[in-house]
Amino acid sequence: MSKCEVPYKIYLEESEVPKEWYNVRADMKNKPAPLIHPGTLQPLKFEDMQPIFCDELIRQELDNETRLIPIPDEVQNFYKMYRPSPLVHAVFLEKALGTPARIFYKFEGNNTSGSHKLNSAIAQAYYAKKQGLKGVTTETGAGQWGTALSMACSYFDLDCKVYMVKVSYEQKPFRREVMRTYGADVTPSPSMTTEIGKKINAEHPGTTGSLGCAISEAVEAATSTPGYRYELGSVLNQVLLHQSIIGLETKKACDKYGIKPDVIIGCAGGGSNLGGLIAPFMGEKLRGEADYRIIAVEPASCPSFTRGKFAYDFCDTGRVCPMAKMYTLGHDFIPSANHAGGLRYHGMSSTLSQLYADGYMEAVSAEQTSVFAAAEQFARVEGILPAPESSHAIRVAIDEALKCKETGEEKTIIFGLTGTGYFDLKAYEAYNDGKMTDYIPSDEDLAKGFASIPNVGL
Amino acid sequence: MSKCEVPYKIYLEESEVPKEWYNVRADMKNKPAPLIHPGTLQPLKFEDMQPIFCDELIRQELDNETRLIPIPDEVQNFYKMYRPSPLVHAVFLEKALGTPARIFYKFEGNNTSGSHKLNSAIAQAYYAKKQGLKGVTTETGAGQWGTALSMACSYFDLDCKVYMVKVSYEQKPFRREVMRTYGADVTPSPSMTTEIGKKINAEHPGTTGSLGCAISEAVEAATSTPGYRYELGSVLNQVLLHQSIIGLETKKACDKYGIKPDVIIGCAGGGSNLGGLIAPFMGEKLRGEADYRIIAVEPASCPSFTRGKFAYDFCDTGRVCPMAKMYTLGHDFIPSANHAGGLRYHGMSSTLSQLYADGYMEAVSAEQTSVFAAAEQFARVEGILPAPESSHAIRVAIDEALKCKETGEEKTIIFGLTGTGYFDLKAYEAYNDGKMTDYIPSDEDLAKGFASIPNVGL
Repeated sequence: MSKCEVPYKIYLEESEVPKEWYNVRADMKNKPAPLIHPGTLQPLKFEDMQPIFCDELIRQELDNETRLIPIPDEVQNFYKMYRPSPLVHAVFLEKALGTPARIFYKFEGNNTSGSHKLNSAIAQAYYAKKQGLKGVTTETGAGQWGTALSMACSYFDLDCKVYMVKVSYEQKPFRREVMRTYGADVTPSPSMTTEIGKKINAEHPGTTGSLGCAISEAVEAATSTPGYRYELGSVLNQVLLHQSIIGLETKKACDKYGIKPDVIIGCAGGGSNLGGLIAPFMGEKLRGEADYRIIAVEPASCPSFTRGKFAYDFCDTGRVCPMAKMYTLGHDFIPSANHAGGLRYHGMSSTLSQLYADGYMEAVSAEQTSVFAAAEQFARVEGILPAPESSHAIRVAIDEALKCKETGEEKTIIFGLTGTGYFDLKAYEAYNDGKMTDYIPSDEDLAKGFASIPNVGL
Repeated sequence: MSKCEVPYKIYLEESEVPKEWYNVRADMKNKPAPLIHPGTLQPLKFEDMQPIFCDELIRQELDNETRLIPIPDEVQNFYKMYRPSPLVHAVFLEKALGTPARIFYKFEGNNTSGSHKLNSAIAQAYYAKKQGLKGVTTETGAGQWGTALSMACSYFDLDCKVYMVKVSYEQKPFRREVMRTYGADVTPSPSMTTEIGKKINAEHPGTTGSLGCAISEAVEAATSTPGYRYELGSVLNQVLLHQSIIGLETKKACDKYGIKPDVIIGCAGGGSNLGGLIAPFMGEKLRGEADYRIIAVEPASCPSFTRGKFAYDFCDTGRVCPMAKMYTLGHDFIPSANHAGGLRYHGMSSTLSQLYADGYMEAVSAEQTSVFAAAEQFARVEGILPAPESSHAIRVAIDEALKCKETGEEKTIIFGLTGTGYFDLKAYEAYNDGKMTDYIPSDEDLAKGFASIPNVGL
């Protein structure tokens, strides 16, 4: 397509919003390793997963072959509320940096969940409804995923039971209220409503909870309540599939205006945003049709890609979930309380892990004070207060643009702006007050986490 | 223009964003009454206002004749960050209500200030910069205006000094942090940095402040600091002029898709949003070219239009500002602590007051529990968590749509969704907990406020 004038914000037409998700696994020669049962070490089969997940989502989880999967009409309809999301030409940022680089960002924060999480939440809620279920359970830490699933369940009139890490429940009451406004039942975890919750409360009186514990409670609640299933907002293949809508829209907008990215940058916690953003570009790369530099950015305090091991490990600290082969810091690794809660996960998507192991991606880590400096610089010139998670990508996009300033290269940089920071003002306050600290785990810290990685010989 | 298929969200092209503001006063036969000096009772002249306001803004304030005023290039450039804002066809709400009415809303919340306030903030900051000023001062209560002006000043590298009502400063730390992130100097009011602040602190030890006091401090700081002026986010004619961008975009989108509104609804506190939204439609009505029902919605707890008097009154409780002829509850009227801080003002724009007095508009009031019921219903189906202020308009839009359901009329309703409620979750919490109460002032309560309206015989 010929290059035409690029508007500041590129909105696709409603009719241009993709009608199929793209499954990058179909183009991978080395498929991501399957989830395995921790007892038998055998790959999980459809039946093994049925008590936990919806049937159709299991099919998507296991499907490494189908390249394009139709987006159900009902999901497309919901997407209309907030999609297409804009691909923004960061002209104000370029000017502030004085860079010859062209910078674009795909902004996923213009919806009440405040992030890209809604893309998968609505799909997962839809399949639960279609299966005739009564409700779903999940856990939430920072609260973006819990909010997204609450909104999605409200739309399909499904019950939504959210186990929210107790310390977040108490310290982030506003996120909790958004979920309640959407009709969700929000329980601080560990609670006395599950066996595992009672056990943890008995063993650790006064504990403020953890994501691992909340996952265990949510899974128990789903499997012990008739008509319920458990849903998860990242890491899984199915989630990356749904999130491919981000990348597909980005690619279409690029094609429409003749933009060819040299570098694509995304923050990475469990991998939902990065996996979605890069999907069609990675597809071209895997098929040898085009080349792009693809950079994952993770917090220096939780460096699964850059300092972790590629091995089978439990997906949760409570060891109730299956094991996945991924870059991991060990399921016992406890990252410092950095402010990007969505990136504070010991592991990483199996799909992205395989792509990284095979050399299709790079990864870098960033320290949080430098991330917030980038966030503030961005907010002041581009007018959007970014989420701490997204700001990791901003940091590296700025760094790359500044390199171009030195070399004079007119590179095109695209990064994912996954969400807004309206519920992260405590973190901004710490930064504004000069009280934010960095934390980089020592080799000894990492060794402790690595010790928890089971040696399954796979 | 022929009627074409209406998309769910109508985004104008960048090139279609209006390049001129529309001054509705030019089409009014009865001009809004001028601001007068409380001592002389004479209309304020340019020179009288110079110590307080920027020169160009005074010209706009006084100009009742020029119909179209060019939007400076620098302001147009900034508008690109978040404009055009979408005109959304509320198909999900229509379906939920089962109404034959067509409902559209103009959504102004997709920017970090969270509201339409940015439209005027950037214009006011621009004129301050152009005049070579060093900085501006303002007051903020709920914080939307303070946030907007902070963003605008950051863009033009102007100092921004915000006096924030002390109780808000302490109870809304997140709003404060957004302002600080944009580099604003935020002072809890009453402070010890101004004479009036010291006086109030001495007379009322431990006071948590009021908007009236914060205005007084901001005006004093502006007039006593070389190179500073004061800026205000509502009520004034200049603000309505800048906010006409809302209505102009709405009108253009309507014309493009053959939408002809029967009813236009907006919430009204000082009038900035309503005045902006209705501007071009009111213009047609004033010129006899078209007719529309125009409805202002105000809180039952602060009913300036529906129960106030049309008279000259002070704009602030501290009596440091000039007097305006407007619908007022009296500058001593203290509205109950309802959750729509942006609508808790004793008076109303002089322009809108004159139009209301002349019969061009209707006004209704709504109680806050019914407003929050509408907010929740809207959030669940349209995916946006609305600001309490905006939800007043939602309430009446839903009521009008339900009337259409009874009568079978296929009316077209447009309302202004001025902002998001991400910083109002305390209010949602009260609603979710069933602890929200309504407050309707008694005739005796109103009589006390009315007693403070000066009898100037005008």
